[in-house]
Amino acid sequence: MKVAFLIIGDEILCGKTKDANLQTLALKLEEKGHSLTEVRVVADEETAIIKAIKELSTLYEIVFTSGGIGSTHDDITTESIAKAFGASLKINPEAMKILANFYKLKNLEFNAERQKMAVIPDGALLVHNNLTFAPGFVLDNVYVFAGIPQIFNAMLEEALKTIPNAPKTHSLSIETTKVTEGNIAHELRELQAKYTKKVAIGSYPKMHENGSFSLQITFRSTNLEDATNCKKEAEELIRSKI
Amino acid sequence: MKVAFLIIGDEILCGKTKDANLQTLALKLEEKGHSLTEVRVVADEETAIIKAIKELSTLYEIVFTSGGIGSTHDDITTESIAKAFGASLKINPEAMKILANFYKLKNLEFNAERQKMAVIPDGALLVHNNLTFAPGFVLDNVYVFAGIPQIFNAMLEEALKTIPNAPKTHSLSIETTKVTEGNIAHELRELQAKYTKKVAIGSYPKMHENGSFSLQITFRSTNLEDATNCKKEAEELIRSKI
Repeated sequence: MKVAFLIIGDEILCGKTKDANLQTLALKLEEKGHSLTEVRVVADEETAIIKAIKELSTLYEIVFTSGGIGSTHDDITTESIAKAFGASLKINPEAMKILANFYKLKNLEFNAERQKMAVIPDGALLVHNNLTFAPGFVLDNVYVFAGIPQIFNAMLEEALKTIPNAPKTHSLSIETTKVTEGNIAHELRELQAKYTKKVAIGSYPKMHENGSFSLQITFRSTNLEDATNCKKEAEELIRSKI
Repeated sequence: MKVAFLIIGDEILCGKTKDANLQTLALKLEEKGHSLTEVRVVADEETAIIKAIKELSTLYEIVFTSGGIGSTHDDITTESIAKAFGASLKINPEAMKILANFYKLKNLEFNAERQKMAVIPDGALLVHNNLTFAPGFVLDNVYVFAGIPQIFNAMLEEALKTIPNAPKTHSLSIETTKVTEGNIAHELRELQAKYTKKVAIGSYPKMHENGSFSLQITFRSTNLEDATNCKKEAEELIRSKI
């Protein structure tokens, strides 16, 4: 399944906060055999959110979002997603019950702002989290989660239970300082041609703090044998260069 | 100026690599008074890159890209961007000279794969980097940089010299454990209404390792006095809650 991720938040775009959810989502999807195909980051702005949701939910089978479902004035994700799908907003009785219990236990007032977190688009299903209990939801093919990494993660775990597995992509890799990219690029191109449509070879130079470089070469395939054979041939190529 | 960032790379989408360039770019743009308005991540796939470049370069005044300008078969950014603008690819004599000198000094063969890094779209201007000397370039309103963070950063520094400053957005913040979001949401909404169009108030709960929460409230404005006054009022509101 082709999946998109929409990160909603001014704090990411102005550099205040470093996103921590993209990699979590990517790795968990990989485990289930699905691939993240596109990611977007937009501001806490209704028009930007609606435009991105309309486009991504049409282009991809599943869309995940993070951010903007809390209780403050700058949390406008829920309303924006309802508008994108032409859905009305309604108090969800199950969410109301869960939140009322949670705040009662915490001895905190369940005020109007906190009750706002029980308002979700009509037709959406709740996605629970066992940390703050304020639920995310799924509307159509869009899963709407909190931005706080621990809560995003809890909601993702919950949602992934309902998404079927697909054949997993195996990812093998070599890390070497014996050759540089320019040294092996010609041979890797030929190797990729040999394994066209079987294995995707990736080449990633990394610069270390002392200014030296290492090279990581990855071999991705749904067929583990193909990936293993391709990797062996690449190791041979590297040896021939030393 | 409204700016977009296109991150190109399978390694980000599959979770192998955590992007490190978004925050760097966001913070440097903020310093110059510009704002990052949208970010996208796409795979090393020609159609995906061309589509994103066409859309973003039309929607925004400046677009930065990272990734895919090295010497291996999976580096297809340069060709894709040339196609997006209908430009032909040409050997750039200045880039050839710089790279030839660099590999001569390093006592490495300046082979066909390395020479590929001197091929850029016709009409593009080079963006130099003093680390690996393989240049990035700017074509139309799109700045095309390497993905390796140190090199991305070097190219960005070089490019920013040519981009004019604009009035800076001042960003003040309060970090508190004295109130939670639900506790102060009503008052923050009223404060935001009072400072409409003057100050953007953001509210960001953070969950710590021990499960406790803190709240960061930010006050962003091009007018430092407005931001300062708004922050003072928020501090007063927090005090009244304790």
